[in-house]
Amino acid sequence: MAAGKGTRMKSALPKVLHALAGKPMVQHVIDTARALQARHTIVITGHGAEQVEQVLRRAQVQGLQFARQMPQLGTGHAVQQAVPLLADDGVVVILSGDVPLTRTDTLQALLDVCAGQQLALLTIDFDDPTGYGRIVRSPSGQVHAIVEHKDANEAQRAIHEVYSGIMAVPARLLKPWLARLDNQNAQQEYYLTDVVKFAEADGVPVVAHKIDDATQVAGVNSPAQLAELERAYQQRQAQALMADGVRIIDPARFDVRGELTCGQDVQIDVNCIFEGRVQLGQGVKVGANCVLANCVIEAGAVIHPFTHIDGEKLGVTVGEGALIGPFARLRPGAQLGAEVHIGNFVEVKNSTMAKGAKANHLAYLGDATVGERVNYGAGSITANYDGANKHRTVIEADVHIGSNCVLVAPVTIGAGGTVGGGSTITKSTEPGALSVARGKQVSIANWNRPQKQPKA
Amino acid sequence: MAAGKGTRMKSALPKVLHALAGKPMVQHVIDTARALQARHTIVITGHGAEQVEQVLRRAQVQGLQFARQMPQLGTGHAVQQAVPLLADDGVVVILSGDVPLTRTDTLQALLDVCAGQQLALLTIDFDDPTGYGRIVRSPSGQVHAIVEHKDANEAQRAIHEVYSGIMAVPARLLKPWLARLDNQNAQQEYYLTDVVKFAEADGVPVVAHKIDDATQVAGVNSPAQLAELERAYQQRQAQALMADGVRIIDPARFDVRGELTCGQDVQIDVNCIFEGRVQLGQGVKVGANCVLANCVIEAGAVIHPFTHIDGEKLGVTVGEGALIGPFARLRPGAQLGAEVHIGNFVEVKNSTMAKGAKANHLAYLGDATVGERVNYGAGSITANYDGANKHRTVIEADVHIGSNCVLVAPVTIGAGGTVGGGSTITKSTEPGALSVARGKQVSIANWNRPQKQPKA
Amino acid sequence: MAAGKGTRMKSALPKVLHALAGKPMVQHVIDTARALQARHTIVITGHGAEQVEQVLRRAQVQGLQFARQMPQLGTGHAVQQAVPLLADDGVVVILSGDVPLTRTDTLQALLDVCAGQQLALLTIDFDDPTGYGRIVRSPSGQVHAIVEHKDANEAQRAIHEVYSGIMAVPARLLKPWLARLDNQNAQQEYYLTDVVKFAEADGVPVVAHKIDDATQVAGVNSPAQLAELERAYQQRQAQALMADGVRIIDPARFDVRGELTCGQDVQIDVNCIFEGRVQLGQGVKVGANCVLANCVIEAGAVIHPFTHIDGEKLGVTVGEGALIGPFARLRPGAQLGAEVHIGNFVEVKNSTMAKGAKANHLAYLGDATVGERVNYGAGSITANYDGANKHRTVIEADVHIGSNCVLVAPVTIGAGGTVGGGSTITKSTEPGALSVARGKQVSIANWNRPQKQPKA
Repeated sequence: MAAGKGTRMKSALPKVLHALAGKPMVQHVIDTARALQARHTIVITGHGAEQVEQVLRRAQVQGLQFARQMPQLGTGHAVQQAVPLLADDGVVVILSGDVPLTRTDTLQALLDVCAGQQLALLTIDFDDPTGYGRIVRSPSGQVHAIVEHKDANEAQRAIHEVYSGIMAVPARLLKPWLARLDNQNAQQEYYLTDVVKFAEADGVPVVAHKIDDATQVAGVNSPAQLAELERAYQQRQAQALMADGVRIIDPARFDVRGELTCGQDVQIDVNCIFEGRVQLGQGVKVGANCVLANCVIEAGAVIHPFTHIDGEKLGVTVGEGALIGPFARLRPGAQLGAEVHIGNFVEVKNSTMAKGAKANHLAYLGDATVGERVNYGAGSITANYDGANKHRTVIEADVHIGSNCVLVAPVTIGAGGTVGGGSTITKSTEPGALSVARGKQVSIANWNRPQKQPKA
Repeated sequence: MAAGKGTRMKSALPKVLHALAGKPMVQHVIDTARALQARHTIVITGHGAEQVEQVLRRAQVQGLQFARQMPQLGTGHAVQQAVPLLADDGVVVILSGDVPLTRTDTLQALLDVCAGQQLALLTIDFDDPTGYGRIVRSPSGQVHAIVEHKDANEAQRAIHEVYSGIMAVPARLLKPWLARLDNQNAQQEYYLTDVVKFAEADGVPVVAHKIDDATQVAGVNSPAQLAELERAYQQRQAQALMADGVRIIDPARFDVRGELTCGQDVQIDVNCIFEGRVQLGQGVKVGANCVLANCVIEAGAVIHPFTHIDGEKLGVTVGEGALIGPFARLRPGAQLGAEVHIGNFVEVKNSTMAKGAKANHLAYLGDATVGERVNYGAGSITANYDGANKHRTVIEADVHIGSNCVLVAPVTIGAGGTVGGGSTITKSTEPGALSVARGKQVSIANWNRPQKQPKA
Repeated sequence: MAAGKGTRMKSALPKVLHALAGKPMVQHVIDTARALQARHTIVITGHGAEQVEQVLRRAQVQGLQFARQMPQLGTGHAVQQAVPLLADDGVVVILSGDVPLTRTDTLQALLDVCAGQQLALLTIDFDDPTGYGRIVRSPSGQVHAIVEHKDANEAQRAIHEVYSGIMAVPARLLKPWLARLDNQNAQQEYYLTDVVKFAEADGVPVVAHKIDDATQVAGVNSPAQLAELERAYQQRQAQALMADGVRIIDPARFDVRGELTCGQDVQIDVNCIFEGRVQLGQGVKVGANCVLANCVIEAGAVIHPFTHIDGEKLGVTVGEGALIGPFARLRPGAQLGAEVHIGNFVEVKNSTMAKGAKANHLAYLGDATVGERVNYGAGSITANYDGANKHRTVIEADVHIGSNCVLVAPVTIGAGGTVGGGSTITKSTEPGALSVARGKQVSIANWNRPQKQPKA
């Protein structure tokens, strides 16, 4: 169910598209459903239906189907819209697009108690159940009703077990029950929870699977609730990685928005963010305040603090034992070999650097092919863009580029060559040559420097 | 009351001048009082009186008055100093300069129960009331005394309701009561709380307004307490902004020191700091670890991580749809138009950049006027300072500045012109011209690079 | 005891070498023991013994001795290995290498209750004592047994007081008790806790020192537990510094990994990290997101956000009233005088800068000696490395270096001299001279800039 408006989000974006850990909430729910190996995944859209469907279509989830609920007349009405898409021999798991953190194993357990023939409700005990539908059980413990808070009597209000909004039910039972729903109530809505009555009437057992982790059934109605679940999600990621041996210096300052895989003995300092797909090889150390996205960091590499890496679609690779940062930025297509050093205030984009190449200070490498052991001087720039097109710079092995040079692409610096500091190189150079392009040094003795002018 | 020393702060600064969210604690209290539309706001100074008064005078709060308490002989003695400044027909709200987080609506409620004729005490229940003055009520619930902890008997010590230190009282009642205070007690101090006795004696009802948010009455006596209230304050800011629809990825890593206003669908990533007056337009995204001060960010702009903006007095404007950072710094007077791009390791100061202008890599723009669609190359610098005076650089529309250029101000690059990489431009150039100022490239074949010398 | 494997750490590193606050856990325990003025400190190694011993030998702790436990047959067996090294007239304090946060004063109190003649156990009450050895006391309160959880009866399991794993015992008693241990139990291990039985049998009083701070006896068996203790340690550091008057804006975002000493009125903004030995003088302000290691910051200096300082072995000094950052990096051997300014994207390494010298924008200073009041221009670089050797650059007092210059070391710029923007200086210059080394500016009118080529 992904039709809600989410008024309290105060946003132009439909509620279920709001991101948790960088991914729309509803996508979390779909991913969980798919991890159950659902035969069909049906998203019931309503408010902002077109936008929701477009975003999910773009994510290219296989076998996703949509049902539109217009207007929104209650949860039962929502599920009614999906009826034509439900196979009679299946079990339907009904989830909410704004309840993003339900675990797959929880739903599997719910399916297990459903056993293909019962109505299975996911329930939880709340210290303060105010506002929630209570699970009313017979003395023997059998579930026989969900009573809404406002309809509950004193004894029922004292019940702490509440319905989570999640159920599993065989389609062949659900369909006729949905057909029997009516809206004869204060809100004039079709309530899905009425199926409990029909189950009891039809002699179908109603069973509950009770969990104790409230985050799994927590819904998002406001930015504050979204922020709470964001932290719960991140704590879950951190705990899972630590259980696998990752050293995380402060799990409360750790964010994964995508998929982070780590080799043995990885260390991650405070306040780091990982986005997209990130692989950290054995023994990798990530310093404080790094942002790493869509990249592969190979074994033993050290990422110093304040490093920003984003490979976007092209990816970034950092080779074994490389040293990166602090204050380095690696952009899409940076492919750094083993033992490459990238130092402070250096930007690398769409360039390969072979083993042992170094660019340690204030430099830009774009669209460059850099050979082994090259030393690329402080302040040097590859001028890869002529104002219209991008061209390639080739720096062969063992070249030494001086400081504040400009290499105007397309250009090749031959192997073992040297470029003098302050040179602007526009023509390719021979291997082993020293190339210089700069003015002659002249001095004017006793020069009078400009004087401070009085302010007007 | 702002006369206390604050020994446990272990600071040369008077306690009430210690900053919470970038503003002296006493200023928070004054701002709260003024939000009540107080006719007069009187600050009673003592320890560090001159410094406190100077700081507050500099803040130019209108209608602020000072009374000095020298020496400090108790809370009653403090308020006695303000008597000459109190209008007889008013109601006096007595606040503490080291209790910074009382809310205006709380004080308004206190004034309401005072009703211009009663003694109204702000009270709170503490789980552990040790050390606080207990609110002793008659069986009917009427307040009839504040009993100090050390004077309390067993039954009184069992009371959890305590006096917060904040009261509202009509001036015409307060003045004679203050005159009746004595210091016949262990500390030889004049206690303001004795007015409760006088009220009872005079048949003036004593009423309480009880709240349950302890942060509102929490005082600061140590850096640890100040840090606690700082977090409480920041949580309050975060919750208020989220209630308005702002997406804050981690409210525990969010700091506002001043006034932050946000349009719809603003997103703020972890660990950002906002100082002074900051406006974020609709749909603005602020990446992780940004510091934004005194600036206006217009709709749809994206501020990438590690961006530092401080407009100080001149302000900074970032236009619609602009992309800033990562690792960018915008300084006072940076006025960036729509769709401007400022990339990594770029500094902009006192410069205007028109729509679509770009400076994407390692560059400095100071005292420059940059036209539309200008591309300002990597490593290029406006040499705006001749060692004595600052001069202006004008780069007209559609200019392309190559890499590692120096533009020696005052200088104008004519519209549509191009400056070759590595050029130092000292004379203005014509529109449409290609300008180059660099040495001719020469090479020495088979050059022997210096050899590593053995260390002495 | 430092022989454990730490399977749940899932690491190639022996458990006790995992770092807490940048220092191996076992080193914390050794430092605590040494603060007790232990005559001998004996580390019982086992798993990874060579690595543990090597790391500790490298740390050059005086008087450290090692005993190896191979294989590991229980805690009693571990201590048996140390017997030959124990002086008969001493008291033995038995600590665990994976319990890093025990306080010295706690151990001193334990020694006090031991009094050189009793068996003293460190104990604590746990809300949930499941799994821990219970302290069984006689009705008079006398300790007479430690009963392991699995051996405890119903009544014993209801006891909340548990043994911490830490004891103090006279060596002359301990030695014969160790000799009497056997491994006739389910695990076939020699349990140190059996000494309690022997004490009772021998009429030696068993006394307990009970504490209430669980972090002091918390052991580390997993990365998650290590992360928890890391936060507990950092909170302890923050609280201690705040009690001394340091203003820490958010104690939950504060990390000290080494020794931080602060003068009066130091302010530390959020998310800062201090490593090695760091001294902050009176009134120093450290902005958000700084990493400071092995440095001395003198009174009144301001470190702006995003500053990275690491002096490693050479150290870094920042003089009085200096302004550093944002986005500055100071590397080993940076010695900055009073009122020096280092601005954004500037790196300084192994260089001295005299009073009032400035390098405010995108610059590199390496192996340089910079005089008073020098202004070092934006984008300028000292080319200190010729590809083989490093050379020194000397910039005398009152020199003005323009923008994007290269100073090719070895070179001296004479006092009061000026270097024009964009110059590459290879020869030393005279005092007072203006030196320029750049090409003549030429222009080609109506130049046709390259056109965007269609993509293949």
